[in-house]
Amino acid sequence: MVQACPAGVGQSLDEVETPALLVDLDAYERNLGLMAAALAGRDVRLRPHAKTHKSPIIALEQMARGAVGVCCQKVGEAEALVAGGVPDVLVSNQVVGAGKIASLVDLAAQARLAVCVDDARNVAELSAAAAAAGVTLGVLVEIEVGMGRCGVAPGAPALVLARQVAESPGLELQGLQAYHGSAQHIRTVEERRAAVGRAAEIAAETAALFESNGLACPTISGGGTGSLPFDLEAGVLTELQAGSYVFLDADYARNETPEGSPGFAHSLFLLATVMSLPQPGRAVTDAGLKALAFDSGPPEVWQRPGVSYVGPSDEHGTLELSGEASLGYGEKILLMPGHCDPTVNLYDWYVGIRSGRVERVWPVAARGAVS
Amino acid sequence: MVQACPAGVGQSLDEVETPALLVDLDAYERNLGLMAAALAGRDVRLRPHAKTHKSPIIALEQMARGAVGVCCQKVGEAEALVAGGVPDVLVSNQVVGAGKIASLVDLAAQARLAVCVDDARNVAELSAAAAAAGVTLGVLVEIEVGMGRCGVAPGAPALVLARQVAESPGLELQGLQAYHGSAQHIRTVEERRAAVGRAAEIAAETAALFESNGLACPTISGGGTGSLPFDLEAGVLTELQAGSYVFLDADYARNETPEGSPGFAHSLFLLATVMSLPQPGRAVTDAGLKALAFDSGPPEVWQRPGVSYVGPSDEHGTLELSGEASLGYGEKILLMPGHCDPTVNLYDWYVGIRSGRVERVWPVAARGAVS
Repeated sequence: MVQACPAGVGQSLDEVETPALLVDLDAYERNLGLMAAALAGRDVRLRPHAKTHKSPIIALEQMARGAVGVCCQKVGEAEALVAGGVPDVLVSNQVVGAGKIASLVDLAAQARLAVCVDDARNVAELSAAAAAAGVTLGVLVEIEVGMGRCGVAPGAPALVLARQVAESPGLELQGLQAYHGSAQHIRTVEERRAAVGRAAEIAAETAALFESNGLACPTISGGGTGSLPFDLEAGVLTELQAGSYVFLDADYARNETPEGSPGFAHSLFLLATVMSLPQPGRAVTDAGLKALAFDSGPPEVWQRPGVSYVGPSDEHGTLELSGEASLGYGEKILLMPGHCDPTVNLYDWYVGIRSGRVERVWPVAARGAVS
Repeated sequence: MVQACPAGVGQSLDEVETPALLVDLDAYERNLGLMAAALAGRDVRLRPHAKTHKSPIIALEQMARGAVGVCCQKVGEAEALVAGGVPDVLVSNQVVGAGKIASLVDLAAQARLAVCVDDARNVAELSAAAAAAGVTLGVLVEIEVGMGRCGVAPGAPALVLARQVAESPGLELQGLQAYHGSAQHIRTVEERRAAVGRAAEIAAETAALFESNGLACPTISGGGTGSLPFDLEAGVLTELQAGSYVFLDADYARNETPEGSPGFAHSLFLLATVMSLPQPGRAVTDAGLKALAFDSGPPEVWQRPGVSYVGPSDEHGTLELSGEASLGYGEKILLMPGHCDPTVNLYDWYVGIRSGRVERVWPVAARGAVS
């Protein structure tokens, strides 16, 4: 049920068992540094999303470079993060159901924990559980700012919910979550800027409404890797939830980037083996639907001009070779996943590579933490 | 890294933590029985594909109903199956790389093991490793029969490879693999019948060529759940690799079924919770891209007219409610996955349900066995 570890420290890339999830450590560390530099001197905190990497080790490396804590989406992820020593976690999501709420409250006795709400019944349940356990849960009221998923309507409905939170034992109203997920993947700079700007306005208005009604709103949390320059430009968010910047993926590569962006680079790859060369122009690798996420399209073949990944099946990936391109029997290739988060969730191990050697092997501790 | 088990035996469905992978035990057992009945009295063996379920427990239940063994795609899967007591496994795939071949040879010392080949270099490597270890590996020559993936060309090229296998120490030529994966999902009965018929003809001709050249070809292995009636009609395969029949999925439901088909029913479901009701007409569940495979489309909402699953994000599934449809806060719903195999691979546990109660909880032993 746990994958055998595909690599040992000191091995060469050729010795790594495939498919394996590789991290280019130079690029990964540069990404961490670029984010720290982008936020240096600004009045905004970084709370990167750990749903991307599911690793307390990476979370602590982010905190060592200035992040105030991390977010995650599931209580199971929060458990893995707290167990790995992360002291401050926002579950940037609704936690519904007695079992999950009990686990959340247990965590709040061990670390600084906060959660999002968009429903009065949920607030009542969270309060009852936290109060009974004698712990305090931080709470952000999640408002709908344009993505059409969760979140109470901004303005008056958000105020009603915020008041309920403020009056509920065991809960501490910390502010708002105003996350616009779909804006991360709007391709053009101008449209992305506009969507992020509208979301920021909505958030600012609701925060002002809270304050004019005597409710403090110290935190406005949201944002992502795709919207980072515009989130900074708008200047409304007090906490940035960007997560994908540590790795990037083929989908982020399709976004236009505005001038002055931090210049994050791809650091996450799949190492795959050419396992069949059935006819000229076609090769087959050992990485298919169970080795990569395809919701944002197929992976891109890394630095092999003329080679494209054209067809996944469950355990195979068919490659098309054009022009002079060729691949050898048993050769290893690098694939850049279409979407980093759900690809990471298929693996139990990161294999950290530097200068062609395995330097670190670390677990995807919250792999499979779906609940 | 291993998911917490979402259920305990005896619990009601309401007590199961979500998202959870459910098996309707009545439907599952009926599917096993229907397959046994469909093959009773026929001169064909069943070697169901364990890549679907990744469970030695299910494999042994299939064997108890007449299967001669199982297939799987990866050495890691074979390891989990053999460790769980399965005595006969075909890796219906190419196994490339010294590490994987060494593991395969280790398994061949513990169980009856066979593997597919489509490359002379691979045959040489398998032979060297098997001979050095003093074991015998069964070998099927995989031929291309229409799906455009792995496989040597039928006819003369296959004969050359078969001869090499027959002459290689440590290897036993057992015959052919003639699998037409894409034929499983051809929608209309007539087109599916035609594709399967062509594949069968190709396989029969190559088998005859082997035999006229003094090479025995006792096994012709292939077929699947979608092609079963036509595989039986064609009468060429000696071993059927159907796997999905134990569970089915939304994609198989889109196939036309010919008269006289066994009548397999959906037995695999995702249990999900309604975690947000942000506005009339919209609900959000806790099952998104990390809880379901989307390569064959979104899941179908089971027996809830007017409720459709319209949009996944990593950890959310947005539902649209039309007409009179409504859902309650915290309510549990069943989703029928678009594609069973990669959905199963996201979970460590099956929760077996009968009459609304948890009757069995068993591990997805080869979850994540990508190599």
